[in-house]
Amino acid sequence: MSGFKFECLHTSKRSRARVGRITTPHGVIDTPGFVGVGTNGTLKALDTATVQEIGLQLMFCNTYHLLLQPGTEVVRQAGGLHKFMNRSLPIITDSGGFQVFSLAYGSVADELKGRGNKKNEGHVLKITEEGVLFRSYRDGKKILLTPESSIAAQKDLGADIIIPFDELPPYHIQETDLKRSLDRTHRWEERSLVAHLNNPQNQAMYAVIHGGTHSHLREESCRFLTALPFDGFAIGGSMGKTREQMFQMLQETLPKLPAEKPNHLLGIGDLESIAACVPLGIDTFDSSYPTRAARHGVLLTKEGDLKIGKSAHATDFSALEADCPCPTCTRYSKAYLHHLFKASEMTYMTLATIHNLHFMVALMERYRDQIVCDAI
Amino acid sequence: MSGFKFECLHTSKRSRARVGRITTPHGVIDTPGFVGVGTNGTLKALDTATVQEIGLQLMFCNTYHLLLQPGTEVVRQAGGLHKFMNRSLPIITDSGGFQVFSLAYGSVADELKGRGNKKNEGHVLKITEEGVLFRSYRDGKKILLTPESSIAAQKDLGADIIIPFDELPPYHIQETDLKRSLDRTHRWEERSLVAHLNNPQNQAMYAVIHGGTHSHLREESCRFLTALPFDGFAIGGSMGKTREQMFQMLQETLPKLPAEKPNHLLGIGDLESIAACVPLGIDTFDSSYPTRAARHGVLLTKEGDLKIGKSAHATDFSALEADCPCPTCTRYSKAYLHHLFKASEMTYMTLATIHNLHFMVALMERYRDQIVCDAI
Repeated sequence: MSGFKFECLHTSKRSRARVGRITTPHGVIDTPGFVGVGTNGTLKALDTATVQEIGLQLMFCNTYHLLLQPGTEVVRQAGGLHKFMNRSLPIITDSGGFQVFSLAYGSVADELKGRGNKKNEGHVLKITEEGVLFRSYRDGKKILLTPESSIAAQKDLGADIIIPFDELPPYHIQETDLKRSLDRTHRWEERSLVAHLNNPQNQAMYAVIHGGTHSHLREESCRFLTALPFDGFAIGGSMGKTREQMFQMLQETLPKLPAEKPNHLLGIGDLESIAACVPLGIDTFDSSYPTRAARHGVLLTKEGDLKIGKSAHATDFSALEADCPCPTCTRYSKAYLHHLFKASEMTYMTLATIHNLHFMVALMERYRDQIVCDAI
Repeated sequence: MSGFKFECLHTSKRSRARVGRITTPHGVIDTPGFVGVGTNGTLKALDTATVQEIGLQLMFCNTYHLLLQPGTEVVRQAGGLHKFMNRSLPIITDSGGFQVFSLAYGSVADELKGRGNKKNEGHVLKITEEGVLFRSYRDGKKILLTPESSIAAQKDLGADIIIPFDELPPYHIQETDLKRSLDRTHRWEERSLVAHLNNPQNQAMYAVIHGGTHSHLREESCRFLTALPFDGFAIGGSMGKTREQMFQMLQETLPKLPAEKPNHLLGIGDLESIAACVPLGIDTFDSSYPTRAARHGVLLTKEGDLKIGKSAHATDFSALEADCPCPTCTRYSKAYLHHLFKASEMTYMTLATIHNLHFMVALMERYRDQIVCDAI
């Protein structure tokens, strides 16, 4: 695709870790890189200008949510998501599949934690080869999400990187059912690619590798999808019950992806996983963890998590991180942040999110520096 | 008081409207001016840096709230409210009396609207000549608020302008009871002034004129309080059931205040009241109205209130106000603001508050320009 390019600048001598550069119509993404999640076309508690100042190079928006509100037609009329939210840097959108199937099956995390899914029951009306029929939780309207309609929605949104429509199978699934789901997902991804290539619109498309925790299914997924002209590869589906299972799966899967194309780990962005996955060769990570943690009082520092609600911070007038150049650390003390958190002030949400997002951007910068020196 | 100065730069030939300049240790306040309310030491949804960029010259913080969280002792340890919240521009604090008596009697607005006050019953334990004993809603601790303890708290906070302890009598009060309350309020204000002058700390103190809607009691309050060396005069207490009653009261009261000292109208800042009160000679207005309205979807424009939630705005990609130079209007469309509002995004709160606050700052600037030209 013109306008999209991936260059691997350095591969570590000690691991599969690599430093790369993705070029998109809206600028560069340095890898390994963190991708902030702005579900509704905004990072929670931050406006676009602030996110850009922090230097977040790639932002993830959810097609499912934007389909329901404001509707992708509205975003198309605005001239696409970049213009709608006034973002000049790269954006990636997903297909909507993950959210729709979370409604049907519950999310994998819900399932593993034994959380019920009753409140959403009945919102998914039918799953067929064609796609998924579901009912909007906003206005009760029936919506048919198919590979073609998902791609049409993502064309309206106009992100730099888009994702084919796939099925998120439940974690506790029989292998024969998982194989059936995988085959259908492959057909859906191929239909998505065809729909995309009919009207490329200067967008890139990453396939989604599935196969759950079954090595041979992951292998099959890599074989099938890398044979198609995707611009990059995202790793999705169930990644197991534990981080170790995920690391194991990634260790086996990543070598089966073409080194000359970028890869992305879907929905994972806690610090421990990033630390383990960078050496495995992951290029980009999206996660709402750092921003959600911020809102819940967990601030990321080089010395570990800092719980701002603890009373010890009430009279600590030093910055959250002495050497952090972010607007929160340079302007406000821990005591002030503690107070705003205790007083349930929205201002706290903004200041905490700024710091955590800045922390992630700086963290990935340090990983890149370390890889260039073959230190990891 | 050294560091505090009021100059009247121009009085309109058409009304009592005047343009002035208050100088404080933290800079200048142009009058007539709007005072933003940041109850807990922050304007809701905005950080200090943003508020300063908008050009809000005076910010109102509530001693009652800061007394309970984080405690004024913490703010004192931080080096005062300016350092605690990193504000370099002027701050005014109230005495805490208004909130404490709202607990006891319900606010005048609640009373006039027939709203009950049951949830707060019992929080005020005792009202005596000494002061008010109440129970903290945060930790159940008993707190005695007196003229002396309110001033001590306001010394800890270190605002540029402070306010003496007063009683907020209920609206439906017998005149004899109101007279008794007024006399005690005068004694409390005098005790507050004595406490303040024992340790001026470069702060100015505005008296609070009481007397409800009774002309002769307002007159008596002006006579009593203007005889004392206050730096300015705030108008408080019940202002009547209707705007007209308030305008009537202000028309009678303002000429009884010394022209060479600044005055302030407590808690009033809707556009209609400002329009009527500027010609009466009010110098500053504090109100949470513009910021609260923003959060509830009401955006202020020169063409009147704009309800951002209306579906007509869903596909209006123009700015809220074409000629508004605020960061919200220069960056985002009505359609985007509508979407963020519909999606209940906190980002909406921030962007809407920025606009409404900027609107108030610009509005007062226009009033000053008009007064200088004797146009109002």
